[in-house]
Amino acid sequence: MTAGLTVIPSIMRASVLTAAGSLEVQERPVPLPDPDQILVQVSAVGVCGSDVHYYREGRIGDFVVESPMILGHELAGRVVAVGVNVDDSRIGRRVAIEPQRPCGRCKQCRAGRYNLCPYMEFYATPPIDGAFAGYVAIQSDFAHDLPDNVSDSAGALLEPLSVGIAAIRKTHIRPGSSILIAGAGPIGIIVAQTAKAFGASEIIVSDPIPERRARALLFGATRVIDPMEDDPSQLEVDAFVDASGSPRAVDSGIRAVGPAGYAVLVGLGSPTMPLPVAHIQNLEVIVTGIFRYTDTWPTAIHLVSSGQVDLDSLVTGNFDLDHVREALESDRNPESLKSIVHPNL
Amino acid sequence: MTAGLTVIPSIMRASVLTAAGSLEVQERPVPLPDPDQILVQVSAVGVCGSDVHYYREGRIGDFVVESPMILGHELAGRVVAVGVNVDDSRIGRRVAIEPQRPCGRCKQCRAGRYNLCPYMEFYATPPIDGAFAGYVAIQSDFAHDLPDNVSDSAGALLEPLSVGIAAIRKTHIRPGSSILIAGAGPIGIIVAQTAKAFGASEIIVSDPIPERRARALLFGATRVIDPMEDDPSQLEVDAFVDASGSPRAVDSGIRAVGPAGYAVLVGLGSPTMPLPVAHIQNLEVIVTGIFRYTDTWPTAIHLVSSGQVDLDSLVTGNFDLDHVREALESDRNPESLKSIVHPNL
Amino acid sequence: MTAGLTVIPSIMRASVLTAAGSLEVQERPVPLPDPDQILVQVSAVGVCGSDVHYYREGRIGDFVVESPMILGHELAGRVVAVGVNVDDSRIGRRVAIEPQRPCGRCKQCRAGRYNLCPYMEFYATPPIDGAFAGYVAIQSDFAHDLPDNVSDSAGALLEPLSVGIAAIRKTHIRPGSSILIAGAGPIGIIVAQTAKAFGASEIIVSDPIPERRARALLFGATRVIDPMEDDPSQLEVDAFVDASGSPRAVDSGIRAVGPAGYAVLVGLGSPTMPLPVAHIQNLEVIVTGIFRYTDTWPTAIHLVSSGQVDLDSLVTGNFDLDHVREALESDRNPESLKSIVHPNL
Amino acid sequence: MTAGLTVIPSIMRASVLTAAGSLEVQERPVPLPDPDQILVQVSAVGVCGSDVHYYREGRIGDFVVESPMILGHELAGRVVAVGVNVDDSRIGRRVAIEPQRPCGRCKQCRAGRYNLCPYMEFYATPPIDGAFAGYVAIQSDFAHDLPDNVSDSAGALLEPLSVGIAAIRKTHIRPGSSILIAGAGPIGIIVAQTAKAFGASEIIVSDPIPERRARALLFGATRVIDPMEDDPSQLEVDAFVDASGSPRAVDSGIRAVGPAGYAVLVGLGSPTMPLPVAHIQNLEVIVTGIFRYTDTWPTAIHLVSSGQVDLDSLVTGNFDLDHVREALESDRNPESLKSIVHPNL
Repeated sequence: MTAGLTVIPSIMRASVLTAAGSLEVQERPVPLPDPDQILVQVSAVGVCGSDVHYYREGRIGDFVVESPMILGHELAGRVVAVGVNVDDSRIGRRVAIEPQRPCGRCKQCRAGRYNLCPYMEFYATPPIDGAFAGYVAIQSDFAHDLPDNVSDSAGALLEPLSVGIAAIRKTHIRPGSSILIAGAGPIGIIVAQTAKAFGASEIIVSDPIPERRARALLFGATRVIDPMEDDPSQLEVDAFVDASGSPRAVDSGIRAVGPAGYAVLVGLGSPTMPLPVAHIQNLEVIVTGIFRYTDTWPTAIHLVSSGQVDLDSLVTGNFDLDHVREALESDRNPESLKSIVHPNL
Repeated sequence: MTAGLTVIPSIMRASVLTAAGSLEVQERPVPLPDPDQILVQVSAVGVCGSDVHYYREGRIGDFVVESPMILGHELAGRVVAVGVNVDDSRIGRRVAIEPQRPCGRCKQCRAGRYNLCPYMEFYATPPIDGAFAGYVAIQSDFAHDLPDNVSDSAGALLEPLSVGIAAIRKTHIRPGSSILIAGAGPIGIIVAQTAKAFGASEIIVSDPIPERRARALLFGATRVIDPMEDDPSQLEVDAFVDASGSPRAVDSGIRAVGPAGYAVLVGLGSPTMPLPVAHIQNLEVIVTGIFRYTDTWPTAIHLVSSGQVDLDSLVTGNFDLDHVREALESDRNPESLKSIVHPNL
Repeated sequence: MTAGLTVIPSIMRASVLTAAGSLEVQERPVPLPDPDQILVQVSAVGVCGSDVHYYREGRIGDFVVESPMILGHELAGRVVAVGVNVDDSRIGRRVAIEPQRPCGRCKQCRAGRYNLCPYMEFYATPPIDGAFAGYVAIQSDFAHDLPDNVSDSAGALLEPLSVGIAAIRKTHIRPGSSILIAGAGPIGIIVAQTAKAFGASEIIVSDPIPERRARALLFGATRVIDPMEDDPSQLEVDAFVDASGSPRAVDSGIRAVGPAGYAVLVGLGSPTMPLPVAHIQNLEVIVTGIFRYTDTWPTAIHLVSSGQVDLDSLVTGNFDLDHVREALESDRNPESLKSIVHPNL
Repeated sequence: MTAGLTVIPSIMRASVLTAAGSLEVQERPVPLPDPDQILVQVSAVGVCGSDVHYYREGRIGDFVVESPMILGHELAGRVVAVGVNVDDSRIGRRVAIEPQRPCGRCKQCRAGRYNLCPYMEFYATPPIDGAFAGYVAIQSDFAHDLPDNVSDSAGALLEPLSVGIAAIRKTHIRPGSSILIAGAGPIGIIVAQTAKAFGASEIIVSDPIPERRARALLFGATRVIDPMEDDPSQLEVDAFVDASGSPRAVDSGIRAVGPAGYAVLVGLGSPTMPLPVAHIQNLEVIVTGIFRYTDTWPTAIHLVSSGQVDLDSLVTGNFDLDHVREALESDRNPESLKSIVHPNL
């Protein structure tokens, strides 16, 4: 490990999930980067719904937190050291982190679908620690340089933007397409902005909550509907993205898709849902989902740096490492959209 | 209309569905071909599950038989006359008929998806008459010349083979792929043969009935399973085709699809089915269906003519126009696979 | 033909190419729309390089002007009458015209590639008359309603924009991609704008003429290069579009394309050119060309109406029917970009 | 390194290219497998045109043999030892080797195009040694188990079959397609067989030498033509593969491709060739090339094991390590097709 000028401590503070509902700030050893890794001093970490889920339930589906774990996987920071195989010119750079470590050798990796690597190590997914901590290590290739005009918080939120980009790519929309998005939470809002950046001319966001609909109009939606009043299935759109996880929204959204259009399911809900099979058949609708992302950070950085996507305005709360609980609980406030933890504040 | 040497009568016999469950042989005027059409003396007509459904129920979903209608849409015959804009060299040719008439001008037609044309006129779909009759008219471009080594019955069964080709195309399989097919009825058997012709190396057919499983092994399956004993969802295949319409088969079949694989729903069942959404998301499975076909007859003819697909052996019963009822009822015999009506026998 | 309130004359004025280099304003009968057509009073017609070529040479490749022909195929106008099968609500609408009439029935049409229809009738391509005339007829489906904020001239220039859209679609660029465009003439400028609308983050335009490079920077280019000084082949881009027809530009442009990238040849030059085959092989570059377009007008209208593409600023000269010669000669002025003929001025 | 029961020597014999035209059998240390590698005792090595080229010229384009190098990259053998991270159940297995080592981490690798990895180490490409030697090391994932019914020689020839599969995949042919193949040498013959396995119904092979045309008919061609007598450009096919490297064949072959068809350039010839650009544009032909392959061995093994492709019959000469020169010179005999070197004979 080639050290830079920064003095790197051997011990860091980290917010550790010790049991469902129980967080504790502990001292942990600063990770040592592997030969192909870098060490990053963490500046900003976004709070994701999955963090909240692990915090509250201690599990997501088959992924169970069985020993103390650090949450947080949306992050940006500054490179403070590099592994032996990494050029030390990276030291000092501000970077956004793609928080995954695929094996690089399995069938999925070799096919360009490293997000589906069965040997994946992903931040804040048991038993891999995440980023509510002073420092993290990541492969150099998965730390993406940030332009000066992208803030630390926006750098952290490139992760949910990557989800939006992965979803929109699978919709196959292009300039002039129409799209329906169910759910105006953080992901729905990001998907709407991404759809706009990909050229969609009609971006309809459906959400039952008036405040969320109003917010969607500020972030790319050309029209909003209340699904309790206007049945989305009466629309005809080129593509549908579900960012709600609601079975009713998924059903009506798929029904809104016209001939040979795409429905991409992003929201997490029940593992099984009733889907409109006859509609899928009669119109040859293509239904799929996304599992994380591949090769999205360069695009995400471009979209933010060029001003096409606004991530800073999504931030509704900032917290230090001693207030991660408050960050994780902030979703109880309907005004809240994205909370950011600053571990080195 | 340029007449050939054949004397064409003005009246023909036809088996007419007068009400659900009620068939009657009637005299009908021989159709006059439009300028771009040909007149075909019908040799062989396959009985499709949809014919049986209309016969028994008088409707399929939103398609309701409201006035007497002729069933039958899988057919071959001989050209006996041509419309004014058609070269009369076609007269005398044996042809298989693609029984649809898209508008050729709408958005779907212009995009190459003429099967999804909202103005489609399709044989034996209310209110369009089908082919249990002495003669039919069809656009010349949709009557495909038959090689000598393809029988009339096989020519008729190019229609269900087209369904199989359309389904297999959407699976994206290629030489060396693995596929699971649910249901060993006529469509399942044809899909299995088509999968083999497209190069699949592993073709697993699932069906609860032993006789049907045994038959599948004769027509391309490399392995058969009884879904009551072996859970198909424990497999990992590149693609799945449902030819059963069974919700349980659809669910377990989709679960059998590996990363980024395809599930194509062909069987008609309930308009809504519970699907394994979490599996679709976690493995980015692509789920779609087919609605008829585009541009399949040339491929179908090649597959049969070259011996890669055997349609003749699927025929388990032959009937004349006075026994269409028996043809339609033959599915009650579990040994029956495909019945053929010969209207001019 | 259902006439609207407008009194439609039976005779119109038209600028007729009577021989290479020879134009004459003649009286011609106003065309009668077929049942599926509309009659359009022409407002604006763009001058295309192919018009100039026919005017000067009397031919383009195998297409030879053998009898007097009306040029012009980039146009907008107002619907004044409709064929019997067209809803007369169209009368009075401002429309942009997609100046082609595919057969709708051949193999190419059925595959969604109607631009490659061998039976195509295309405006101003011998022996089909074009639009330097008071009125034209076109199938209703190929006349696209114009929003109020799209001018007549911009409506006419949706045709070259369609060329740009067809080219950019084939480049497969998406937000964040880089592209090199050779040639800063009208098509190059439009391709640059289209690339920007499709999200390209780096748009490099190469042209040897300083004034043209300066103009490119006003219309989407993020960087311009003089190919006489900077070798384009030293770049590495995701995609290349040739809008120059220059063998040297084509060669160096293809060499600039990185692994698995696309090169789309739009410019017309020599029918055969030396291409860098080893580079194409070693990097698996995909080289193709475009022949007109399919399904581009809705996208083109959206791009202009939303302000993402500026066509009005491309217009550098306006002419009436008596000055078509001057319009065709205006390309001799290096300041000229697009000339518009207004036949009913 | 976990050793199996086989006693592995520390020294092996190898045929070393010491200078252009100069081969020498030398003793070399047996390679030590890296943690993710296996050690393979080489059974059979095919002679490729590139081996012959390096032998005669000492270089291929920019790749120059600057120090003594072992040739040979088409090979099969038996696993005799494994690296520390490889399961030792692999020991004793007969394997075919995919002779490349991509980095697994660069942009191309992450995109699923590991063949285009700029950090690739490829057998028998300077400075990486090849397989005319007793033993080689390879990553375990790139050694593919051979079924009993695939011989060692066929196992070696899975490498050129992989070239054929990579080429045919890029042609997008499917059952019923037509294809023209220029050149009936080893690659042309393999491409013809592969085209048949992928379902092509019309496989036209063009070669000026009668004996080679006759041989093509034994290996999948449905028709052969002498390009000196029948102009291939008069054909209309769905796809073209050049396996000749002849500019004339490439030009006429591309001209033979119909609307929206594919031309794939495999043969190595001049780095620049005149191509029919107007034809490419007017018919929107897609021209590309291949550089090696990704993920082809499983398919190749299936095609050979199932009897769809016959590689054993391509072998026209067998040589031991002391006769590599004769193997490399055997292409001077027009009867020769593929020579195999058996390093441990």
